[in-house]
Amino acid sequence: MESEARIYLDNAATSFPKPEPVVRAVTEYMTQCGVAAGRGSSRRATALDGRIATGRAALARLWNAESPREILFTFNGTDSLNLAIHGCLRSGDHVITTELEHNSVLRPLRMWEAERNVTVTILPPEEDGRISPARLVSALRPHTRLVVLTHASNVTGAVQPIGAVGELLRARPDVLFLVDAAQTAGHIPIDVQQSRIDLLCCSGHKGLLGPLGTGVVYLRASRVSEVRSFRQGGTGSQSESLDQPSDSPDKYESGNPNAAGLVGLAAAVEWIHVQGVEAIAARAAELVGQLYEGLSANPRVRILSPDPALVPNAGVISFVVDGIDPRVTATLLDAHFGIEVRAGLHCAPLVHRSWGTLETGGTVRASVGPLTTATEIDALLTALLMITTAM
Amino acid sequence: MESEARIYLDNAATSFPKPEPVVRAVTEYMTQCGVAAGRGSSRRATALDGRIATGRAALARLWNAESPREILFTFNGTDSLNLAIHGCLRSGDHVITTELEHNSVLRPLRMWEAERNVTVTILPPEEDGRISPARLVSALRPHTRLVVLTHASNVTGAVQPIGAVGELLRARPDVLFLVDAAQTAGHIPIDVQQSRIDLLCCSGHKGLLGPLGTGVVYLRASRVSEVRSFRQGGTGSQSESLDQPSDSPDKYESGNPNAAGLVGLAAAVEWIHVQGVEAIAARAAELVGQLYEGLSANPRVRILSPDPALVPNAGVISFVVDGIDPRVTATLLDAHFGIEVRAGLHCAPLVHRSWGTLETGGTVRASVGPLTTATEIDALLTALLMITTAM
Repeated sequence: MESEARIYLDNAATSFPKPEPVVRAVTEYMTQCGVAAGRGSSRRATALDGRIATGRAALARLWNAESPREILFTFNGTDSLNLAIHGCLRSGDHVITTELEHNSVLRPLRMWEAERNVTVTILPPEEDGRISPARLVSALRPHTRLVVLTHASNVTGAVQPIGAVGELLRARPDVLFLVDAAQTAGHIPIDVQQSRIDLLCCSGHKGLLGPLGTGVVYLRASRVSEVRSFRQGGTGSQSESLDQPSDSPDKYESGNPNAAGLVGLAAAVEWIHVQGVEAIAARAAELVGQLYEGLSANPRVRILSPDPALVPNAGVISFVVDGIDPRVTATLLDAHFGIEVRAGLHCAPLVHRSWGTLETGGTVRASVGPLTTATEIDALLTALLMITTAM
Repeated sequence: MESEARIYLDNAATSFPKPEPVVRAVTEYMTQCGVAAGRGSSRRATALDGRIATGRAALARLWNAESPREILFTFNGTDSLNLAIHGCLRSGDHVITTELEHNSVLRPLRMWEAERNVTVTILPPEEDGRISPARLVSALRPHTRLVVLTHASNVTGAVQPIGAVGELLRARPDVLFLVDAAQTAGHIPIDVQQSRIDLLCCSGHKGLLGPLGTGVVYLRASRVSEVRSFRQGGTGSQSESLDQPSDSPDKYESGNPNAAGLVGLAAAVEWIHVQGVEAIAARAAELVGQLYEGLSANPRVRILSPDPALVPNAGVISFVVDGIDPRVTATLLDAHFGIEVRAGLHCAPLVHRSWGTLETGGTVRASVGPLTTATEIDALLTALLMITTAM
């Protein structure tokens, strides 16, 4: 398998390949450093802590956070979302979210609904695949505590109007605005001030191009007292106290960090800064346009993502081939053409319910990264033509 | 720094170096595989899932679990302990634990005590640094739900009588027995059946020799219904449901696993099986004996660990040098001799309270791993002699 040409179009699950400095950072850490982070005072530990602090600062800069202390490291996107959701909800709260969300939002909320007296309003998208900011805001209640909105659907790629929602939420300073940036962090620009975001959650291994085992939360400094810690334990600080520290980031970062992952993530975010996230977004838009056009030209293909010429897309296109189970399409692409895409529900069941794809195996999803090429998109389109001609 | 001789004696924080197959597995994953685990159906994803399943089975075998499904993967030892503690406690419960515990046990328990009407009994160790099983069991109350006991103190290394405690707890099947194996997993044999353990928690990157960003929980199958999920989200299974799956391990493994870490961990546990955990334990005992004897011969050194000839030790010795702050000792060892040890409280404050080392900077801690040599121990002893002669 290693010797055959490989076309990886599942960057919405995890990005591959990683930029070379990322792999080098991990390997160097494992072979030459190897110490625990945030706990020691040896020269290697001090240098490692400095490197991780650089990554924290680079992320703060990427999203226009006011301070690196607003950047929390976790272990994956789901861990980030659980930290955020479980941290801020209380019995009796009302939450607004959408049908576009991933199970990493829907399942924690369902748990609060089922067990802890929280009510959840789940809004459908409009015809164009986007949430209406006005409709969202009209669902606010006096005891609404939290709005959770994905920045882009992991099934359709449609970018959601977080800026407009954030702007409207300025009238409700008591409401926490949580944005799930799983599909947009590193892919498209994000400004937490401009979009009035209180909590931004993502993994470190998708668009941020870091290793698996890393996740990130932006938590606005003024909200720290409203968000409980998710994990309590050793923080390498205030060790004499049995109480969890109350300051960010230590309040939220207990236990040994994934140091190998975090030095890789630091290198990755620096690579993104050098490329420029606007340039990365522009390239992805081109590739997604090419993919959408090509798929539109195939009469057997039904595309479920909105036209990226009309609705900005974070690099993800979902489609089905008439008469072929999505899982079969994906298997054929992998087995005969060396093309890796994803088939299924993509852990976002409610999107499929409204499309009627919940009981038919979901969709085929192709997703690009900053190292994807136009030639690779062409190869996918050609392969699909061959499949639809043959079957 | 890279060119000078390096002596790493901080294996209780994280082990270094890792066996060569561990580094190779991580590098190969990052450069050649790169796909997400547990979510896809491509050939690479299937092979990866198989590799991770092998690691799960190897861990089940290591601890005599009845099924690999009883092995849950987390992201570090603290994550494992939080999963266990937050999963099983309910308002009104009573918990028994000890002064030997790490803050990753004490701080979650303190939170339950402060906010959720849980009472916690914290037992001191006996003169020999061990918890008395009889005293522990006499602290049981009718509503005791959980006993949390470290298998070995991360400050003293003293191995605790988990087998005797487990045996006595057979009379109380309503009580969950949680063992913190942070310092013993991979270091010394553990049998969850023989010791009647319900939950065993550890990191994957200490004695198990895997990469950082990995943790492990053993959860007895019959207890799954009593332990809530800690993180809810996408599991790659039952994606059509908004409810978290109720089966183990999916119930407890939401979000993208640290695939790079888990293939490294699988390679590490296989390496441990080849060496034999008994052989690893015997080597560590020799080294710790050598260290204890050598330190005893230095009149300026006060050893806080019990004599390993009398109390089994998991590979950790704590000491202080009269008249020198532990942090200064550690810095001198690092700067002048290239020896990395740890100084401080080691996130276990209550141990220091009883020794009077809480306000004096804690202890110097030296900890061995399976790749530590007798020559390295000699180098530490010689360096300490030079320091105590010069200062």
